[in-house]
Amino acid sequence: MERLEMMYEGKAKKIYATDKADEVIVYYKDDATAFNGEKKGQIEDKGVLNNAITSMIFEMLNENGIKTHFIEKLSEREQLCKKVEIVPLEVIVRNVAAGSMAKRLGLQEGFKLKTTVFELSYKDDDLGDPLINDFHAVGIGATTFEELEKIYAMTAKINDLLKEFFAKQNIRLIDFKLEFGRYNGEVILADEISPDTCRFWDATTGEKLDKDRFRRDMGNVKDAYIEILNRIKK
Amino acid sequence: MERLEMMYEGKAKKIYATDKADEVIVYYKDDATAFNGEKKGQIEDKGVLNNAITSMIFEMLNENGIKTHFIEKLSEREQLCKKVEIVPLEVIVRNVAAGSMAKRLGLQEGFKLKTTVFELSYKDDDLGDPLINDFHAVGIGATTFEELEKIYAMTAKINDLLKEFFAKQNIRLIDFKLEFGRYNGEVILADEISPDTCRFWDATTGEKLDKDRFRRDMGNVKDAYIEILNRIKK
Ligand SMILES: Nc1ncnc2c1ncn2[C@@H]1O[C@H](COP(=O)(O)OP(=O)(O)OP(=O)(O)O)[C@@H](O)[C@H]1O
Ligand SMILES: Nc1ncnc2c1ncn2[C@@H]1O[C@H](COP(=O)(O)OP(=O)(O)OP(=O)(O)O)[C@@H](O)[C@H]1O
Ligand SMILES: [Mg+2]
Ligand SMILES: [Mg+2]
Repeated sequence: MERLEMMYEGKAKKIYATDKADEVIVYYKDDATAFNGEKKGQIEDKGVLNNAITSMIFEMLNENGIKTHFIEKLSEREQLCKKVEIVPLEVIVRNVAAGSMAKRLGLQEGFKLKTTVFELSYKDDDLGDPLINDFHAVGIGATTFEELEKIYAMTAKINDLLKEFFAKQNIRLIDFKLEFGRYNGEVILADEISPDTCRFWDATTGEKLDKDRFRRDMGNVKDAYIEILNRIKK
Repeated sequence: MERLEMMYEGKAKKIYATDKADEVIVYYKDDATAFNGEKKGQIEDKGVLNNAITSMIFEMLNENGIKTHFIEKLSEREQLCKKVEIVPLEVIVRNVAAGSMAKRLGLQEGFKLKTTVFELSYKDDDLGDPLINDFHAVGIGATTFEELEKIYAMTAKINDLLKEFFAKQNIRLIDFKLEFGRYNGEVILADEISPDTCRFWDATTGEKLDKDRFRRDMGNVKDAYIEILNRIKK
């Protein structure tokens, strides 16, 4: 698979064209950002670690009947993926209150919610990726109620699979963010699932093993990413 | 009906106990606030006007099969209402993009949404009444999915009735806010429906006939409230 011109550079990844019109190479960088790009930094080897972690997770999802963009891991920092038209929504699942939601609702981090929370945010950097609801998403034409229904059904299944996958490694899946894409008239899972896009707490000690260590200057950021990779590799 | 001790003073109304345990007197003040209480002022006779407007609208809703807290208008500034336990949610209906939603989503005021938007905000002054979704509302225990379903069904019916009611007076109902309360195991419509809680645009000229005149220092605030009352009184 030949890597052709760069199509898009995001904050954490670059997307390259390939010689197939419907496939892209996703290249994982070490750049780290938080708070809508206000905080910037680098995490050594993050690209290598997140590529490895995401590849294992997407393989697991593919094997369990979730349609994803992931085809194969090509190199330390590269994946071959189906090229999708990204649905301009972040789909967030919260099993436990933390981060921006805890703050917004005045809840302690760790608060046991009475229901699993699904959230949408509108992918628009200028607007700061605002929290929206289903009606907003449809009202502005970002999606349709039919597409959303499929996205929520897939998201619920992915949450079940991920919770179990991480529980086996003594990790609590607190929350995570998904992105979906349109491919051949279908909606499939795209983007990444990594310590950049999830909150992982050690199930015994409660230790944070994710990007919150970077957001909150807690130190040992790289070590946390390595720990996640080592646990799921076994 | 005897007016007993004041139970609660809000920004726009006072709630008094009566000699019946399940009835209250709602007293309409002239105080006006905007932007979560940041902007404060008075609108002369607003209490009189909003009491009259709300009374007429709630009568119309009662006659059309919507269960509401409204029993009767007692005086210029007073209504007799059923005493409810307020569901701590503001239910907002947006037929057209305006105000905070237009800003949040980067839309022009007047943008024709692809679907009617229903929004929830969590009634909590310290948190600034944040926008939330159904999962948040249930997750924090503010309501249940069953109660929300009833609230949305009533809200849709109320929107249809109000749109028609105002269209007859050459007024476009842009958006509005509702509050619901629990009464004898039922959920009923409470609070007020007035130029404080709705956006009304003259259907011909587009002139604003609501609290936006106060929020945006447009002048002729009282005149707009009088205009609404005069049109619906006919
Ligand atoms: N299979 C795919 N095909 C096309 N684009 C994809 C695919 N998977 C992910 N993307 C998009 O590629 C970009 C990945 O880059 P990155 O994660 O660095 O973006 P970002 O900085 O988070 O910002 P944004 O998502 O706002 O563009 C994202 O826009 C993502 O939605
Ligand atoms: N039938 C009712 N029984 C009990 N409380 C009611 C009833 N109708 C409205 N209320 C409540 O009474 C108060 C009315 O006062 P007002 O509109 O001035 O409140 P507010 O300043 O908007 O603030 P907040 O709603 O945050 O308390 C509100 O809290 C409203 O929810
Ligand atoms: Mg990204
Ligand atoms: Mg009020």
